[in-house]
Amino acid sequence: MYDFAAEPGNNELTVSEGEIITITNPVGGSSDPWSAWSAPKSGNWDSSDGWGARPEGTGTQRNTANNWDTAFGHPQAYQGPATGDDDDWDEDWDEPKSSSPYFKDSESAEAGGLQRGNSRPGASSMKLPLNKFPGFAKPGMEQYLLAKQLAKPKEKIPIIVGDYGPMWVYPTSTFDCVVADPKKGSKMYGLKSYIEYQLTPTNTNRSVNHRYKHFDWLYERLLVKFGSAIPIPSLPDKQVTGRFEEEFIKMRMERLQAWMTRMCRHPVVSESEVFQQFLNFRDEKEWKTGKRKAEKDELVGVMIFSTMEPEAPDLDLIEIEQKCDAVGKFTKAMDDGVKELLTVGQEHWKRCTGPLPKEYQKIGKALQSLATVFSSSGYQGETDLNNAITEAGKTYEEIASLVAEQPKKDLHFLMECNHEYKGFLGCFPDIIGAHKGAIEKVKESDKLVATSKITPQEKQTMVKRVGTMSYALQAEMNHFHSNRIYDYNSVIRLYLEQQVQFYETIAEKLRQALSRFPVM
Amino acid sequence: MYDFAAEPGNNELTVSEGEIITITNPVGGSSDPWSAWSAPKSGNWDSSDGWGARPEGTGTQRNTANNWDTAFGHPQAYQGPATGDDDDWDEDWDEPKSSSPYFKDSESAEAGGLQRGNSRPGASSMKLPLNKFPGFAKPGMEQYLLAKQLAKPKEKIPIIVGDYGPMWVYPTSTFDCVVADPKKGSKMYGLKSYIEYQLTPTNTNRSVNHRYKHFDWLYERLLVKFGSAIPIPSLPDKQVTGRFEEEFIKMRMERLQAWMTRMCRHPVVSESEVFQQFLNFRDEKEWKTGKRKAEKDELVGVMIFSTMEPEAPDLDLIEIEQKCDAVGKFTKAMDDGVKELLTVGQEHWKRCTGPLPKEYQKIGKALQSLATVFSSSGYQGETDLNNAITEAGKTYEEIASLVAEQPKKDLHFLMECNHEYKGFLGCFPDIIGAHKGAIEKVKESDKLVATSKITPQEKQTMVKRVGTMSYALQAEMNHFHSNRIYDYNSVIRLYLEQQVQFYETIAEKLRQALSRFPVM
Repeated sequence: MYDFAAEPGNNELTVSEGEIITITNPVGGSSDPWSAWSAPKSGNWDSSDGWGARPEGTGTQRNTANNWDTAFGHPQAYQGPATGDDDDWDEDWDEPKSSSPYFKDSESAEAGGLQRGNSRPGASSMKLPLNKFPGFAKPGMEQYLLAKQLAKPKEKIPIIVGDYGPMWVYPTSTFDCVVADPKKGSKMYGLKSYIEYQLTPTNTNRSVNHRYKHFDWLYERLLVKFGSAIPIPSLPDKQVTGRFEEEFIKMRMERLQAWMTRMCRHPVVSESEVFQQFLNFRDEKEWKTGKRKAEKDELVGVMIFSTMEPEAPDLDLIEIEQKCDAVGKFTKAMDDGVKELLTVGQEHWKRCTGPLPKEYQKIGKALQSLATVFSSSGYQGETDLNNAITEAGKTYEEIASLVAEQPKKDLHFLMECNHEYKGFLGCFPDIIGAHKGAIEKVKESDKLVATSKITPQEKQTMVKRVGTMSYALQAEMNHFHSNRIYDYNSVIRLYLEQQVQFYETIAEKLRQALSRFPVM
Repeated sequence: MYDFAAEPGNNELTVSEGEIITITNPVGGSSDPWSAWSAPKSGNWDSSDGWGARPEGTGTQRNTANNWDTAFGHPQAYQGPATGDDDDWDEDWDEPKSSSPYFKDSESAEAGGLQRGNSRPGASSMKLPLNKFPGFAKPGMEQYLLAKQLAKPKEKIPIIVGDYGPMWVYPTSTFDCVVADPKKGSKMYGLKSYIEYQLTPTNTNRSVNHRYKHFDWLYERLLVKFGSAIPIPSLPDKQVTGRFEEEFIKMRMERLQAWMTRMCRHPVVSESEVFQQFLNFRDEKEWKTGKRKAEKDELVGVMIFSTMEPEAPDLDLIEIEQKCDAVGKFTKAMDDGVKELLTVGQEHWKRCTGPLPKEYQKIGKALQSLATVFSSSGYQGETDLNNAITEAGKTYEEIASLVAEQPKKDLHFLMECNHEYKGFLGCFPDIIGAHKGAIEKVKESDKLVATSKITPQEKQTMVKRVGTMSYALQAEMNHFHSNRIYDYNSVIRLYLEQQVQFYETIAEKLRQALSRFPVM
């Protein structure tokens, strides 16, 4: 971990491939905000894997060794993080230009990415309340835990207790959204061009068009609004170079589709006003109105919990803390597992698309060369053998192609799935941070009661509200688990099916090659 | 290519793995003896691949990059060339101790290895007549080409013309020789120990015992006697370190068996007195008598051609030269092809036994880790999935073992076969050298006729005798080709059969793993 101060006029940092760089921006000047509570309770959360130090502000991290995208067989699509001008973004949107290329990196965004909103108006209220802990909670948390009366919002988020424990209420009819038909558009008399996607919700079957920057806007709104309670996975890379290359567009669309499907599948997100409005506006004016409204929404950050009313008995603090720790432990362990699989998969991808097919090709060539030499012997009666050796050689060349193409048919989906989950899991440190912050605050409230700064009744309210947070966490975890089980079952099945077919195809090709050899 | 003079008291030369060292000993002081005739006629015979410079005496070469043995999965068996004391060799045999470890190396022996005999009594007459060319042939060649009357030996080697051209006469009954039952013996009150093998010719079914040094003696006798006409592949490595390790003994026996089978298959070699005596002596006395007799044999080197009487019309020099060039071209090309396959095979062997199974193991472990994490979720109803993922992980560990073990079942035999052929092909530069030397001598004989140094009749005799050499070469090539066709057909068939089975086994294992996943 390098600790360095950004120097004006020097945006560069030399990074070698395979090096792990953790960039901590000293803007806040504060020490590791996680160390106060996370270190003693879960000793294996270290700061080198994205689960440790998360300084507020522009701090983020980049693990180049783990940069799966770069190696994922789409070199044009993943040429590293965006630098300089991003003309896919209008100036009037006031996109903050980062001084380091790493701050726009997909890895950093996946790992939590809350820094994105920090420099935007309206975003400050959702910053997670960790920076001043353990001292006193930031206004957001105080507001939620101590406010005399919570606002009664129109949008209520119900939590019920089902067979599997607390759960969100799932809408009676679900929908998906098809992302399709990427089209190049332009504005400013052709000076700026961009890609526009067609989005068609399956429930209305009425399409709207959105550019990547609109997705990005939605992502930020969802993050600001739900990020303390629900993991909002980041969008695929915002790429500059090669943005218009076919393969990149295809890949990005595939990932935008996956992201959209995820959001549509979530009972709270999919039913939210901002999400509905994104998919269902009727004209430019409606879109702009909705956009402004969403940006003014004050029920964001921890205040989202004020919209939740669990139909369930109050919890005591010990139980709340245990649940929170269990989630932390599980998500950390799964994060490790997912990263391990990604690392292994990336290695395997490289081998299957690089040295391995090259080797099969060489075997094929060597057999064919030998057959050519044999044919020059002038000896009679070896034509059948030489033809058979030539065919065997060609078969190994075919196998080389099969090997090189296979990862796109199986490993790709396993990787994409794990990639998505890595994105989810990267959101949990912030979510758990919010919960731990609230718990800590309640624990300290005894002192406040003793010094009459708050009443015992107010303390009771605090416990109840942390309980609501706990129910929300449990509901979200149950949603997460049921999706996880479904997703991993599907993707490993698919992987194995494709692998079986792959090995059978090779066996069959070799059997054919064998049949061409003369019997002597 | 390093050109260095051996320094007394300094036997060492530092060689890095992968470096190609061509050692040319300046003892003779002569320039490349091949360049005179080979360079202009076959331009692609360069001196870097064992087909070029072959100075007389101790000169030899070692290509460490191509040292397949070392990488062949039998590390104990191939720890490099023998150095220092070789107590498998009796002092009274007067084994010349080389000043460089490279001179005992298997690679050098395979590449021709005629230098072995040079310092032995009786061996000087078979040295190939290249050192003084183009000036005048050495005594051996002169003796054969110009002698008034050839000795009428009891052992005649007939050459007939069959459907495929000139051929050796194959004995009506053939035999093989089973090499088995390696036993540790000792002598000098246990101070010296060695391994003794049991040899059982299939025609007599009567066993004799031989130590490795006896095989080596036989090899040298065969090389001295037939080396100008017939490729005599060298024996497997004479190894010092690890000589008694089980795997080495097994491997050496396998190779001694292959060598023996080769020799038994050869119609000229297998019928020779020295070979028959090696397999059929009745007691120690008979063995020693036969040994002494073989060592005194004067029908060695080019004189072997004097025992050959082709039942075929005389050839003219142009035809002889064309045939010789064709053989040179073919054997050189096949040598290249075989080496290419060996190089590729070695690479593939390394991958299949090294990184590839490690990767499958990692995939297996990663899947199992994930299942373990999933099992800790506390979520109900995912036991089936987690068990299935665990089993899939174990399947990939099994695949890792299959991959690592597979080369022993298929690539091993392909490599052994090519290794043997590399040995054969390495003998051809000397064989062709002898022929070219003879041709060159006949060409120059016009001058000798002009200056009355020889009669026109004597010239005619020379042409006829070179014609005999040519028939011998053609007969040997036909033997070589028919063996080659049979061997490569068999070994590639075996390879493909094993590969088919390998891929089918993997497919089946994966299909079983797949069947364990719950249907959702």
